[in-house]
Amino acid sequence: MVYSVIGTGGIGGYYGGCLARAGKEVHFLLHKDYEFVRGHGLQVNSWRGNFHLDRVNAYKDSADMPASDVVIVALKSINNPLLKDLLPPLLKPDTLVLLIENGIGVEAQVQAMFPQTLLAAGLAFICTAKTGPGVIDHQDFGKLTIAPYTPGAEPAAAKVACDFADAGVKAATAEYLEARWKKQIWNMPFNGMTVALNTSTDALLADPSIAALIREQMLEVIAAARALGVKNIDESFADQMLETTAGMKPYAPSMKLDYDFGRPMEIGAIYTEALRQAREAGCPMPRLEMLEAQLRFIEGRQSRKRS
Amino acid sequence: MVYSVIGTGGIGGYYGGCLARAGKEVHFLLHKDYEFVRGHGLQVNSWRGNFHLDRVNAYKDSADMPASDVVIVALKSINNPLLKDLLPPLLKPDTLVLLIENGIGVEAQVQAMFPQTLLAAGLAFICTAKTGPGVIDHQDFGKLTIAPYTPGAEPAAAKVACDFADAGVKAATAEYLEARWKKQIWNMPFNGMTVALNTSTDALLADPSIAALIREQMLEVIAAARALGVKNIDESFADQMLETTAGMKPYAPSMKLDYDFGRPMEIGAIYTEALRQAREAGCPMPRLEMLEAQLRFIEGRQSRKRS
Repeated sequence: MVYSVIGTGGIGGYYGGCLARAGKEVHFLLHKDYEFVRGHGLQVNSWRGNFHLDRVNAYKDSADMPASDVVIVALKSINNPLLKDLLPPLLKPDTLVLLIENGIGVEAQVQAMFPQTLLAAGLAFICTAKTGPGVIDHQDFGKLTIAPYTPGAEPAAAKVACDFADAGVKAATAEYLEARWKKQIWNMPFNGMTVALNTSTDALLADPSIAALIREQMLEVIAAARALGVKNIDESFADQMLETTAGMKPYAPSMKLDYDFGRPMEIGAIYTEALRQAREAGCPMPRLEMLEAQLRFIEGRQSRKRS
Repeated sequence: MVYSVIGTGGIGGYYGGCLARAGKEVHFLLHKDYEFVRGHGLQVNSWRGNFHLDRVNAYKDSADMPASDVVIVALKSINNPLLKDLLPPLLKPDTLVLLIENGIGVEAQVQAMFPQTLLAAGLAFICTAKTGPGVIDHQDFGKLTIAPYTPGAEPAAAKVACDFADAGVKAATAEYLEARWKKQIWNMPFNGMTVALNTSTDALLADPSIAALIREQMLEVIAAARALGVKNIDESFADQMLETTAGMKPYAPSMKLDYDFGRPMEIGAIYTEALRQAREAGCPMPRLEMLEAQLRFIEGRQSRKRS
């Protein structure tokens, strides 16, 4: 099995790094860190044990990479249009493209570009970030859920889950719609609220008004998901997630990091499309619509500062 | 008619100042500005024409003030507990206390302290602020609506409205519940949103997502007001207010000024009690509940900084 990773940040670097450490053939597409990683390898500082990959198959152009059995896409969803150029050199007829990204609608977007390609969603329950050139900081958790999207992607998805399990990553397959929306239950409240209030997860939950609000926001996502046909989901899921999050180290979700570093935020994938689908299903999410509007305002102010 | 003003800030200084300029007998209770105003008088810079009161009946202790026919209370609602001590020296059996304050529930709170006293609500549609010792800056509008609260307060309220009209202030009486809730339609969205996004009214309305959100928030207040028995109120009122606000000079509402100067915000009067009544009437306001939670978070952070 040949693996490729497009987007070697906190997610791509950690999961790809685990596979490489376990002896799998993994090829990494890099951008800013290409020279550094080629020369110095990849360092993963993980709560499960640090490791260093001395020799990394590093590329700066996907045209130089081999056709792969599995392509792990770990870009920001905002950069998905780049896949039009990045992906084709890596594709074989049976390649599985695993989109480890945030949000709703990303598979539909990529499938529209590549109608013949097998896609699966990757849901990463992990706290991880790139903290320097070739340095990944894996702070907490790590489970990867793989959810086949394209009909026929199931066997490949199962195989990839096994490879991850071999590589020491907790991995499992799951039903697509359920997996994507369950992730939203965490993503929609915490990504936006840490930005809107310029804070971290622990400070949000320490405030009783905000903790109650976040629970209400979670219930909005759960109701919408049910209206959209997701089964096996009920209100207890919100309490479970709140408890898990309260037990986490203080955490800045990816959108908060994007905000802190003045990068565009993934408002479209995490909010806009999800809110649209919920409205269409007759189950709007007023508190999360409000949060989206606040984020658009904050994004507008930041982008005016950038330019 | 003897007038007294408790709280000589942007509101008390302007309205009391107008009455004094027109030759009414007005006594002002001052706090920090007492010495200055006693020595230098009161300067009102108004878009309707500047004026200066050379000789001001200034007091620093309400025990020294005369019993009055009308007491204008223009405190922050947060300071209403002080009225227990401040008001008694000014009260006669037929004194009208006019509470020009923000929010819902302030008359009930003061009536509980003074069950025998005639109360009226004062709704100021005005942009005004104290910008220095003895200096009031009146930027825009100015209409004062007087709404009798205590049964029997109607004749006194009408008389006060006439005195204000004589003094060049646009003034009218109105039905209590309707007047209070109509003011909330503007106060609830704009006070909190300028704080939550650290901005001013013009920037909020320039953003289409936020303008749409504010309209939704206004509709929440309108629905709650109707559920609470307010008549003569429908959705067109929101559009009217949005249009008026869009035509205003960039404005920082009183809560934004409180926030900017590190003072406690009037969350209780502007949000908490209104939200409680709305929920009790079976008509909750989810977007404004969310805004209240965000404000409580921001207030908590600020008060930890203060201490």
